[in-house]
Amino acid sequence: MTKIAVLGAGSWGTVLGSMLADKGNEIVLYGNNEEVNQEINEHHTNELYMKNWSVNETATATGDLNKALDGAEVILFVLPTQAIRIVAKQVGQILTETGRKPLIVTATKGIEPGTKKLISEILTEEIYPNDTDKIVAISGPSHAESVAQKDLTAISCASTSKTNAESVQEMFSNDYFRLYTNSDLVGVEVAGAVKNVIAIAAGILVGKHYGDDAKAALMTRGLAEITRLGVNYFGADPMTFSGLSGIGDLIVTCTSANSRNWRCGRQLGEGKSLDYVLQNMGQVVEGATTVKAVHELCQEKQIDMPISEAIYRVLYENSNVDAEITKMMGRSPKQEIRL
Amino acid sequence: MTKIAVLGAGSWGTVLGSMLADKGNEIVLYGNNEEVNQEINEHHTNELYMKNWSVNETATATGDLNKALDGAEVILFVLPTQAIRIVAKQVGQILTETGRKPLIVTATKGIEPGTKKLISEILTEEIYPNDTDKIVAISGPSHAESVAQKDLTAISCASTSKTNAESVQEMFSNDYFRLYTNSDLVGVEVAGAVKNVIAIAAGILVGKHYGDDAKAALMTRGLAEITRLGVNYFGADPMTFSGLSGIGDLIVTCTSANSRNWRCGRQLGEGKSLDYVLQNMGQVVEGATTVKAVHELCQEKQIDMPISEAIYRVLYENSNVDAEITKMMGRSPKQEIRL
Repeated sequence: MTKIAVLGAGSWGTVLGSMLADKGNEIVLYGNNEEVNQEINEHHTNELYMKNWSVNETATATGDLNKALDGAEVILFVLPTQAIRIVAKQVGQILTETGRKPLIVTATKGIEPGTKKLISEILTEEIYPNDTDKIVAISGPSHAESVAQKDLTAISCASTSKTNAESVQEMFSNDYFRLYTNSDLVGVEVAGAVKNVIAIAAGILVGKHYGDDAKAALMTRGLAEITRLGVNYFGADPMTFSGLSGIGDLIVTCTSANSRNWRCGRQLGEGKSLDYVLQNMGQVVEGATTVKAVHELCQEKQIDMPISEAIYRVLYENSNVDAEITKMMGRSPKQEIRL
Repeated sequence: MTKIAVLGAGSWGTVLGSMLADKGNEIVLYGNNEEVNQEINEHHTNELYMKNWSVNETATATGDLNKALDGAEVILFVLPTQAIRIVAKQVGQILTETGRKPLIVTATKGIEPGTKKLISEILTEEIYPNDTDKIVAISGPSHAESVAQKDLTAISCASTSKTNAESVQEMFSNDYFRLYTNSDLVGVEVAGAVKNVIAIAAGILVGKHYGDDAKAALMTRGLAEITRLGVNYFGADPMTFSGLSGIGDLIVTCTSANSRNWRCGRQLGEGKSLDYVLQNMGQVVEGATTVKAVHELCQEKQIDMPISEAIYRVLYENSNVDAEITKMMGRSPKQEIRL
């Protein structure tokens, strides 16, 4: 029985926590919404994030980070990107005081605005300077709602330490949830973060009534440019991008009407303005933020990312979608594999 | 103006031929249905294969192979796999007599039953022994119906000769149809042929009401095992499989209700027998044939292809789908990238 602190009591954190409790682990969820915490502790539900579903009764929730971390052998981050550094700093301080070195697992996908750093880079800086081996990232096609229903799921589990990746694989696996280890931590993270930009593009094509072949071509060429970014900027392994955190997650994000990024794109394709779409979504459209970081990264290293750059121009430079499509189809002939 | 002989006047041959005629090439379609040929010549339509659509008026059709090949600088094969060797043999004889060496392009995807050879291998043997450079394969997410409507399409165009791949790229490209060259001829062919097996598996998951994450995981792990087959049996480049002929085509085949393989799988998932399904499809289910060749290939070289092997057992050894899923989810833990 391992004590695992799950930081973030939203849908994904609660479902992962409950799944880990089902395997006999001691789970403490840490969240900043006291009502949610109380509901989890008293009623074993989290109706705000997961309707009509029960949390494993042994899992508890708290708003006290010290209490959550007390004795934890594993800390699982399931927070939004913008909250990672703040909480990681607090975690770093608490661990330094206690002298313990629990394993850190991150299920958060994103690139930090400004610094353009990946989640594992932030966690390393704030918690274990110069010891990235203690960080494991999990990423792949997995929605809280599906995992809650025990749908079959397979994801990547990446770390620069084979042993640590394997511990997480063992700890999280069950008969409906399967993990595949990968030593390419940054590749897994880049794939998960940048896919949302391509999802906006896929939505635009659907909004403009293009068909399945066009969408498949977009996803494939989108994967090719994410791969180029990962390899050239972050030193990732190109093969990672054809895995679960890469094309696996991209498939779901670009084909599911549940994806906010995809829905945002579809409305843009139908001719609505970004301001209108963002106002009416009422939720964060991660791809719209990520594309700014991607734009800066490819400018900085001269990486050829025609789809992401077109999305950037459509979102922030008032460029016309049809003109961008014409420009893209008229690019000079290319080889398929260019890293 | 290039004379191109298009062998096969089905939907894909007719649409590709018409598209090439739109660019000013001289197109002769070769088909064995005299009524279809006559309709193309007299009415510029091919209602049997393409409803409510017009063939470019300069394209003609014939049942005479000699006439089709006469003066052709390019021969495009768009025949079913089982017809390739017979026609290629005739083409080889005619070309030997005339002494001409036109470029051969293949749009056919498949593995020859018995010999387990790829289309380019058959064409090389029968037409240009020891000169594979003259063969170019085109493959990727592309349905005749979509290309006929000028939907945006991107595919791979592969040859061991860079020059020949680039000529085909140039010849076929237009403002809605884009080709990417690839030097990995066998990789492009393996990807196109084996995807149908995974499409059956994807259909089964849908028939059994599994969700989008499960399907994305299946497609990704399916891609991983197709890659292993391509690399270990055919010496393919693993990166080819994350391209248009690989994951691009797989996405469309596994998500489109137009795919016969996918529909076959869904019915199997719903509990119908293979005999019943095949009888009621009224059409060839390529994946059901390909899986036999794949089974022999992986037995021969001990290649780990758990999904394809499960499909083989379900189709031909009366194995139970649920038992196969349980077995697959219970396999020992694995690394994600294993070539």
